Amino acid sequence: MARIVMKFGGTSVANLERIRHVAGLVAAEVADGHQVAVVVSAMSGETNKLVGFVDELDADSANGGAIEDEYDAIVATGEQVTSGLLAIALRRRGVKARSWLGWQIPLKTDMAHSVARIEDITPDNLDASMTDGNVAVVAGFQGISEDGRISTLGRGGSDTSAVALAVALSADRCDIYTDVDGIYTTDPRIAEQAKRLDRISFEEMLELASLGAKVLQTRSVELAMNNNLPIRVLTSMAEDGVANPGTLVCHEDDTMDERVVSGVAYSRDEAQITLLRLADKPGTVAKICGVMSDANIIVDMIVQGRSRAENAANLTFTVGKRDLPKALEALESAKGKVGFEGIKSDSNVTKVSIVGIGMRSHTGVAQTMFEALAERNINVEVIATSEIKISVLIDSEYTELAVRALHNAFELQNA
Amino acid sequence: MARIVMKFGGTSVANLERIRHVAGLVAAEVADGHQVAVVVSAMSGETNKLVGFVDELDADSANGGAIEDEYDAIVATGEQVTSGLLAIALRRRGVKARSWLGWQIPLKTDMAHSVARIEDITPDNLDASMTDGNVAVVAGFQGISEDGRISTLGRGGSDTSAVALAVALSADRCDIYTDVDGIYTTDPRIAEQAKRLDRISFEEMLELASLGAKVLQTRSVELAMNNNLPIRVLTSMAEDGVANPGTLVCHEDDTMDERVVSGVAYSRDEAQITLLRLADKPGTVAKICGVMSDANIIVDMIVQGRSRAENAANLTFTVGKRDLPKALEALESAKGKVGFEGIKSDSNVTKVSIVGIGMRSHTGVAQTMFEALAERNINVEVIATSEIKISVLIDSEYTELAVRALHNAFELQNA
Repeated sequence: MARIVMKFGGTSVANLERIRHVAGLVAAEVADGHQVAVVVSAMSGETNKLVGFVDELDADSANGGAIEDEYDAIVATGEQVTSGLLAIALRRRGVKARSWLGWQIPLKTDMAHSVARIEDITPDNLDASMTDGNVAVVAGFQGISEDGRISTLGRGGSDTSAVALAVALSADRCDIYTDVDGIYTTDPRIAEQAKRLDRISFEEMLELASLGAKVLQTRSVELAMNNNLPIRVLTSMAEDGVANPGTLVCHEDDTMDERVVSGVAYSRDEAQITLLRLADKPGTVAKICGVMSDANIIVDMIVQGRSRAENAANLTFTVGKRDLPKALEALESAKGKVGFEGIKSDSNVTKVSIVGIGMRSHTGVAQTMFEALAERNINVEVIATSEIKISVLIDSEYTELAVRALHNAFELQNA
Repeated sequence: MARIVMKFGGTSVANLERIRHVAGLVAAEVADGHQVAVVVSAMSGETNKLVGFVDELDADSANGGAIEDEYDAIVATGEQVTSGLLAIALRRRGVKARSWLGWQIPLKTDMAHSVARIEDITPDNLDASMTDGNVAVVAGFQGISEDGRISTLGRGGSDTSAVALAVALSADRCDIYTDVDGIYTTDPRIAEQAKRLDRISFEEMLELASLGAKVLQTRSVELAMNNNLPIRVLTSMAEDGVANPGTLVCHEDDTMDERVVSGVAYSRDEAQITLLRLADKPGTVAKICGVMSDANIIVDMIVQGRSRAENAANLTFTVGKRDLPKALEALESAKGKVGFEGIKSDSNVTKVSIVGIGMRSHTGVAQTMFEALAERNINVEVIATSEIKISVLIDSEYTELAVRALHNAFELQNA
C-alpha cells in the first residue's frame, strides 16, 4: 500500500463526463490498495467566468481600495464545486470519498490575497479520514488566511496545493494529471520532433517552468525539490489499459547527466526596455532596480552597453509584457532622479532558452547555441545565463525558427 | 441610527447590473446613517445549474449512500459568489463592505444536510465589523454543521438566514427585497383585482406561506413571529425616488381584525390518495400515518368517509405531488398489515384556501365560501380548517375560477 496524491487540472475535469473519467482513474488506485488524496482545479472556463465578473465590477471605479479578499472568496468556488462533484462521482462508483475545502483541512496561508503562500498544513483530520478508507477530494488553489478569510494561491496554484499536501501527508508520490502526456524537449506544436522525457531533474524542471513551459507551476517544483518528493506528470485523457508512463520529475541521476541539453523553452510574455544615455556614475543601475521594485515590477534580463562616442551607457532589461505600461510610467517619472535621456521599449520580443544540468560538465554549449542562431540570421538582443540554462531575447517573428534550430542543434529528437 | 438586515433574492441579484442596483439600495441606507447587514441569494439560475450537475451524477447509480453533504458544499457556492460580488460593488461605490460565509460567522446548523435547521448564530465578529462601519454581506441559505461541513437550509433558506441574523443582531427590522412589491390578497396573475396589503399579521402570513404563496419561506415567518421582529416585503426593482412601501408583516393590530379574510392562496403541489374499504377497527388511521411517516412523507388534509352499504370506511388524504409515487409504493407494501382493499390516487387537484385572523370573530365565513364555490359548480373533495383558514381540495381545472370567485365573495379588491 502506498499513499498517493493525484492532481487534476481544469481540462481534466472540464465537464461531468471528464469528472466521471477521473473518478475511474482514482478508483483504479483505490482498487490497487492505495490511500488516495485527490486535488482538483475548477472546471475549465469557470475561473475565467468568475474573474470576468470581478473585473467588470472592479472597473466601475478606481475608488474603494483593494478587492483581492473578495476576489479570492469568489474564484475559490470553482474548485469547491469540482471537489463536491468528484466526491459524488466516486461514491456512485462505490468508492468512499468526501470533499475538503482549504479552510476545512486547514491549509493556512499568509495574507497576500490572490497570490497567497502556504504557511502551514495541519492534515490530521484529513489523514484520519484517509486512514478510515475515504478518498480525500481536496479543492486546490485555496487556503485560509490568518484572519479566517478564503485565500487563493494564484494561477496554477493547484499544483502547489497538491505538492504541499503530498509533503504534509508524507505521500509516496504526487501524480499531476494534465492534458499533455509528460514533459517534452520543447513545445510539440512548434517542433514536431519534440520528444517526451522519461525523467527530468527538479533543477531543469524549475528552469523550464520559470522560462515559460506551462506544464507545472514553478513554486510546486521548488517545494517538491526541497522535500525530495518525486512528481509524475501524465495525461488524464488516456483510456483504461493504455500505457501512460508520463515524465518523472526527481533528483538528478547518472542518466540525466549524460544529456547536455534537456529542453528548449520560450516565453512570449516579455517586453524589452532600453534606457538611453544613462548618467555614468555609481549606483545608477541600483536606482533603476529600486524604481522597478517600488512599482512591484520584476526585472528579468539586464545588460549594459556603452556608446564610446558619447561616453555614455545604455541599459537594456526585460519586464513582464503586462507590466510594460506601469514600468514606462514609473521610469518616466523617475527620469530626473535616475538620470537618463530617453526610453525605448519593444514588446515584440521572445525569450528562448536551453536548459540542461549536463551544461555544468560540458563545454561548447553556448557556442553551439549561438552558431545555430547565427546560421539562421537570428539577431540576439540580450543574453542571460545560469549554471544550467542560457536564455536569449530575440525578435518574436523568429520564435519558431529559433526553437526548431536549437532543438536540432542539440539533437533533442534523440533525447 | 437603526440596525437593518436587508435580504435580496435570486432575481434581485440576477446579473451584475442588478447587483449594482442592489448596491445602490444598500448605499442609500448607509447614507441614512444605518448599520446594515445584507443577506444574498445565488444569482438566479445558478442554483438550478449546480443542482442539475448533482442530479446527473447522482443518477449514475443507486449505490454509494447519501450525497447531501456534497450537495451542500456545491450549491452553497452560488451565494458565496454573490456575496463577494456585492461586497466589491459596494466598495466601488465607496461603501466599506466585506462578505461573510456561513462558517465564518459562524451560523451553526444541525446535521440534516440540504434541509438543515439553524441551531445557533454567534454574531460577535460580524457585529464588531458592522460597528466598525462595514456593511456585512452575508451569503444566505448556508451554515456550518456540527462536524465542520457546509450545510444548507433548503430552498428559500435565505429568508430564514436573514430573519435569524436579524434576531441575532437585535436588528430593528428585516427588509426582504423580492421581485414583487408586497403581499397580495391573491396571485395577481389569476385575479387582476388582487390588492397589495399594507400590513398582514404573522399568523396569516404563516398560513399563506404554507398554503402556497411563495413570497416568504414558512420557517422565516415563524422565526420572526416568535421573536416579534417585523418583516417588510418590498420590491428590489423600484428605481430611486419611487415610493416602495411594500407590506409589513407584524403582530396583529385592530385594523387587521376588521378584515374577515386577508387572502386567497392556492397550491397545485398536492396529490390525493383514497384507500378503499378500510378495515373498520381502532388504530387503522394511526397505522396509515405510521406508514407515511416511516417513508418520510408528510400527510396534509385527511377525511374519513363511510360507505353505509358495505359497512366499510374509505380514507382520503393528501400528500405532496412529488411524494405520490413513494407514498403509493409504501401503502401497497403495507396493504395487508393495515387492512384495505384498494387505492385510488389523483394528482390533478389543487388546494385553495382563504386566510384571515378576522375569521376568529366573524361567523358565516365558511358559508360564504361554499356558496361561492357551489354557484360555479365547483365540487369540493376534501376540507380542512384551522382557526384562521379554510382549505378545500378541488379539481385543478377549476383553480383560477375558484380563486377569483373567492376573491370576489370576500370583496378583497377593497382590502
